[in-house]
Amino acid sequence: MSADSRTYIALSGGIGGAKLSLGLAQLLGERLTVIANTGDDFEHLGLTISPDVDTTLYTLAGVANPETGWGRRDETWSFMEAIAELGGPTWFKLGDRDLATHVERTRRLRAGETPTAVTAHLARRLGLTVQVVPMADAPVRTMLETDAGILAFQDYFVREQCRPAVRSLRYERAGAAELTPQIEAALAVPALGGVILCPSNPWLSIDPILAVPGMREAIRASGAPVIAVSPIIGGRAVKGPTAKIMAELGLAADVAAIARHYDGLLDALVVDAADAAAAGALPVRTSVAATLMQTLDDKIALARHCLALCEHLAGASREAGRRQPAESGR
Amino acid sequence: MSADSRTYIALSGGIGGAKLSLGLAQLLGERLTVIANTGDDFEHLGLTISPDVDTTLYTLAGVANPETGWGRRDETWSFMEAIAELGGPTWFKLGDRDLATHVERTRRLRAGETPTAVTAHLARRLGLTVQVVPMADAPVRTMLETDAGILAFQDYFVREQCRPAVRSLRYERAGAAELTPQIEAALAVPALGGVILCPSNPWLSIDPILAVPGMREAIRASGAPVIAVSPIIGGRAVKGPTAKIMAELGLAADVAAIARHYDGLLDALVVDAADAAAAGALPVRTSVAATLMQTLDDKIALARHCLALCEHLAGASREAGRRQPAESGR
Repeated sequence: MSADSRTYIALSGGIGGAKLSLGLAQLLGERLTVIANTGDDFEHLGLTISPDVDTTLYTLAGVANPETGWGRRDETWSFMEAIAELGGPTWFKLGDRDLATHVERTRRLRAGETPTAVTAHLARRLGLTVQVVPMADAPVRTMLETDAGILAFQDYFVREQCRPAVRSLRYERAGAAELTPQIEAALAVPALGGVILCPSNPWLSIDPILAVPGMREAIRASGAPVIAVSPIIGGRAVKGPTAKIMAELGLAADVAAIARHYDGLLDALVVDAADAAAAGALPVRTSVAATLMQTLDDKIALARHCLALCEHLAGASREAGRRQPAESGR
Repeated sequence: MSADSRTYIALSGGIGGAKLSLGLAQLLGERLTVIANTGDDFEHLGLTISPDVDTTLYTLAGVANPETGWGRRDETWSFMEAIAELGGPTWFKLGDRDLATHVERTRRLRAGETPTAVTAHLARRLGLTVQVVPMADAPVRTMLETDAGILAFQDYFVREQCRPAVRSLRYERAGAAELTPQIEAALAVPALGGVILCPSNPWLSIDPILAVPGMREAIRASGAPVIAVSPIIGGRAVKGPTAKIMAELGLAADVAAIARHYDGLLDALVVDAADAAAAGALPVRTSVAATLMQTLDDKIALARHCLALCEHLAGASREAGRRQPAESGR
């Protein structure tokens, strides 16, 4: 299998995940499938809003708002001004252009299309060649048990600005979700070169994806290397409440906790140079890279590192397979 | 009853009706109730859109788009650009500010509010003291039988730009609609000084209102003078397809046809000076005024004319009542 015919799968939440997905997309184009978290999805103003799918689409299409990380660039806010004037809810900001995505998604869902089909349509219209797929077509809802009660994700994340202390999380209705044919197919291609868990929040963004029944097993059964990029750099999260949540869950905000969290799933964890010293003591193979993605070049460099790591792991696996044919069933 | 304690009711469609309503509102404030046509309402992009109610609200609030007659002033079009980019339907133009009205209306309707309650809320938020009420809370849909088949109103009016020839009209589900308590109450106040049919299209805008069971009877039973302002001036409609539809229905586009159309309902018809010569031959009392409303002063002048006519008719009726007490049951 030549390196440039291999396909890759990225599991991604919102901003951090979309950054690495963009780097991967630059190198892979249509050979990349991004599985986006839909645990954050919610109904608002009668619209089905899928924030992580949209952040992924907008980022890959180059139309994301570079200041906020969510929403669209060159945005206008007339709708929001008018809805405030009319006494409607304003806690969730919806730009005029962004709104078109939610309205068109909702219209298509009501007409009977699956979230996967709607996402493929939106991706095509935005000019993407990358496959972007929601983690499931059935609704899964990330719920947080906090010191302020049980909160739906957007109530916690946007309305409460992540202030409540998180005690536990659950992914409501995940048990009723199924692997989509598109995800099954992407995981089943013989050319699959690796599965990359993006540096998104493991609890809020990656775990909902892994909570889809069969997802974890299908990832392992693919036989491709599975790697993650740590969202924790030098004891801190680049963005968002990852470190705060880890502390609230009684975990140290370090790469060791990330490694333990993904125990049994990963072939390797990519950690930042700032965490190189801790790397040796982890219960998983590590690989050190510059994981802070500020420029497009940063994103591409980290993506290249991830692909090289997958290739290396695949080669080592094949080598091990040749040495130990009895154990090559993977 | 002193003149400045009398209340008035206007029956109105979109642009032309809203103009006279604005003139009346300047003189009457909270003593005016505008009953707006909802036969044009439709579902689009999952939203309940009520064009004539909105044109009335926007016009009375001073936020209507003066160029189009529909939609809001100082509008932006980012949503429409984005929905076009995403391959959504673009035949019905929705400005970013205008969209907030449809989204908030739809949200409140889904939460169980009546169209009357939603309209009252929107009117309040837009700073209106005038009562604006939809003609009914149940959906009524104006349908046109045309040479291009049976068309829903917006398909005829916006999508087909009024091109098909109209053979007949019907007001679907009108039979299941009921007078709202708000309209019953407005028609029952002893101080009611008059009911004014605005110069809207009789077939497309006023007839749907009159098709609500009990509306016509309640208007007559109110005992207040009922007048209309002709939408035809010198054989032509000021705006829209009124003259075209009249020709297609086999009617001359003149004030006589308007008078015959409202036969049995009116105490008087206000016609433009351009039609003064025809006024004498009409089967209803006429009153000549300048009915073309270009400036706010035009609107107020015509409104003042209408109120004076109602007062005159009420006085004549009282006089007749004193002379013929046996027939004063009206």
